[in-house]
Amino acid sequence: MWELFQFPLCPFSRKVRLLLGEKGIGYDLVRESPWERRDEFLDINPAGKTPVMVDKDQGTTLIDSRAICEYFEETVEAARMITGPATARAEIRRLVAWFDETFFADVTLPLMHERMFKRLIHRASPDGTALREAMKSADAHLDYIDYLLDHRRWIGGATLSLADLAAAAQISVADYLGGFNWSSHAQAKAWYAGLKSRPSFRPLLSERMEVISPPAHYDKVDF
Amino acid sequence: MWELFQFPLCPFSRKVRLLLGEKGIGYDLVRESPWERRDEFLDINPAGKTPVMVDKDQGTTLIDSRAICEYFEETVEAARMITGPATARAEIRRLVAWFDETFFADVTLPLMHERMFKRLIHRASPDGTALREAMKSADAHLDYIDYLLDHRRWIGGATLSLADLAAAAQISVADYLGGFNWSSHAQAKAWYAGLKSRPSFRPLLSERMEVISPPAHYDKVDF
Repeated sequence: MWELFQFPLCPFSRKVRLLLGEKGIGYDLVRESPWERRDEFLDINPAGKTPVMVDKDQGTTLIDSRAICEYFEETVEAARMITGPATARAEIRRLVAWFDETFFADVTLPLMHERMFKRLIHRASPDGTALREAMKSADAHLDYIDYLLDHRRWIGGATLSLADLAAAAQISVADYLGGFNWSSHAQAKAWYAGLKSRPSFRPLLSERMEVISPPAHYDKVDF
Repeated sequence: MWELFQFPLCPFSRKVRLLLGEKGIGYDLVRESPWERRDEFLDINPAGKTPVMVDKDQGTTLIDSRAICEYFEETVEAARMITGPATARAEIRRLVAWFDETFFADVTLPLMHERMFKRLIHRASPDGTALREAMKSADAHLDYIDYLLDHRRWIGGATLSLADLAAAAQISVADYLGGFNWSSHAQAKAWYAGLKSRPSFRPLLSERMEVISPPAHYDKVDF
């Protein structure tokens, strides 16, 4: 059985969990708080980041969320998420990088910093200016998603792909941390509502990070 | 013909160029300074990052260095760089992420910030403490490379892989910016000397970034 080292608001672990859910791959969750830099975890992953997946029976360790997703794409036929001709696959991977890097740096990380790390680690109050900046970026990112969905059925093209899962993973963490005003984003909202109703998504929505509560709409499919 | 948008010290463009060189794929260089945030470039890549590859004849645009590498791995048989069973491929991709993210954040980016961006953009002097910190990290990273090469012929396993190219790309930029003292790293040095002597590497070593000169050993295979 696979073990997945993660914490409830790790957006990269959420991307992997959505993929595993879509593919029907079972796993046990192992709670890991990478900011504690636990020696036993650093021995497994010197980068000190989640997610990490370990299958003790097979002696397999998988590290880095994109490497993990590529591994399950290559080894599990069900629910392929990087599909189509090579240019379409490149577009899916571009968007995965967009959400993993640009969205994360603009939106998810500042929200995590202000509303989670400051509370859990520094016992400090969030900085209002930084929060407003992150929420402004969040709004611009929803505009970009609206724009993509003007031209496509899903974020990465005509079918559900890893781009949708990467986007939904980041958005779900940012939404938990109160980053969005959904009111003027009908297309992004309809797309996200569709993803929230998928069986792969439900387990994520019921989990809570200690000390921090999500807004009331967070786990509602109809929000 | 492919066009590759990049600047001489972009480590991610260097990784792609090493891969293209190994595979024997031709391309024209287009100089792009992403920090200038040129409108025409942002229209091509809203993330505003290099490398970007464009083939006007085919109407193809490729964005994000990992997506670009996967694309050429999938479409060009020659010189496969993500090989072996799925676990070996996951290990190669883990190390690509290690150099793209951890090495870049610890070593390449601070050196670029202190010795390149401060000079080109801010007209400011480098900060001695930040430089010493980056060079200390660089030394720890060479230790890790020595450790990997204790157990393996190449960084990612028994054969040359994308992990070596990702590592060499970051190292070459950090070395240009004077980040390394190679004296106590015989294994890493021998490995890097071997890579420097490859035809795919030679064009990179002869290029110069305006205003900034590399140390004397930078382009010498025997250093």
